[in-house]
Amino acid sequence: MIILGIDPGTAITGYGVIETKNNSVKWKDCGVIATEAGAPLAERLLTIYSAIEQCLVRHKPERVAIEQAFYAKNVHTTLILGHARGVLMLAAQKSGARIAEYSPREIKKAVTGNGSAEKSQVEYMVRMILSPPAASMPSDAYDALAAALCDFYHAGARTIVSAAGARRRQPMGVRA
Amino acid sequence: MIILGIDPGTAITGYGVIETKNNSVKWKDCGVIATEAGAPLAERLLTIYSAIEQCLVRHKPERVAIEQAFYAKNVHTTLILGHARGVLMLAAQKSGARIAEYSPREIKKAVTGNGSAEKSQVEYMVRMILSPPAASMPSDAYDALAAALCDFYHAGARTIVSAAGARRRQPMGVRA
Repeated sequence: MIILGIDPGTAITGYGVIETKNNSVKWKDCGVIATEAGAPLAERLLTIYSAIEQCLVRHKPERVAIEQAFYAKNVHTTLILGHARGVLMLAAQKSGARIAEYSPREIKKAVTGNGSAEKSQVEYMVRMILSPPAASMPSDAYDALAAALCDFYHAGARTIVSAAGARRRQPMGVRA
Repeated sequence: MIILGIDPGTAITGYGVIETKNNSVKWKDCGVIATEAGAPLAERLLTIYSAIEQCLVRHKPERVAIEQAFYAKNVHTTLILGHARGVLMLAAQKSGARIAEYSPREIKKAVTGNGSAEKSQVEYMVRMILSPPAASMPSDAYDALAAALCDFYHAGARTIVSAAGARRRQPMGVRA
């Protein structure tokens, strides 16, 4: 099973692809989609959409895990982040993948055991679990890989035997 | 010149198409895209995207006018609205149309002369200016037509002679 994790952002969107087999999990791909700061929003959305669409075509993930939006203090920031999440969810839905959303807290907890873990702790654990080839990676790529790992642990990827069974086993907040 | 106006919403998105020629403007099409209340957000986004994409293919508008998001008191509502706006802007951008955003106030002012006009006043004026064939229409369709009319008045559709000239004449907040 291939799982794509996404850490959405208008400026930088992280993506991370993992492959799971029985109880094991391995790194497949990761990176960031960066958009031009001064470009019109519609152009940036198209950049994000096209890049994630390519990623979906390349890896054909059965599942896509998207980090839930934090509510920024600035409501405008939250609104703009919503635009980016919208086109990312659209691409995932069009690909036929099953989509799950996880809060930053759930993701941290899944990979470190602590929902309030520091960023460096999350990165350390992602590196321990997946041994990505690059010695250094952007932090949004780590976050995206952590989201994918969270889905692997939460959605019972190890025990799913049928789509119907999987559906019943999904935790709250998971969108099939 | 064909202008598509959009009043974005996750539950109901209004669209309205007008055709302008010299100083005149006429109704071409309008309606609403409704999504299933209980459906997962990703499904609703795909419904909205596919419907507006069809509309763009059918009418090939040179310009798309999207109503700006009001900041709902509930930040979650604002975030979700951002998702819908994201996929609508994406579709418009993919179509190659030029996209402009207008605030609810600008739209009301453009069609009634009063930025705080009542909904009924906006509907009355849209009906006066465009004489849509249907005797009764959903309010989001009126709002979308009003957005298209606002673009017609604001973007100097009557005086545009070249893309370069049009670009210079655009009011603030317009994205080319």
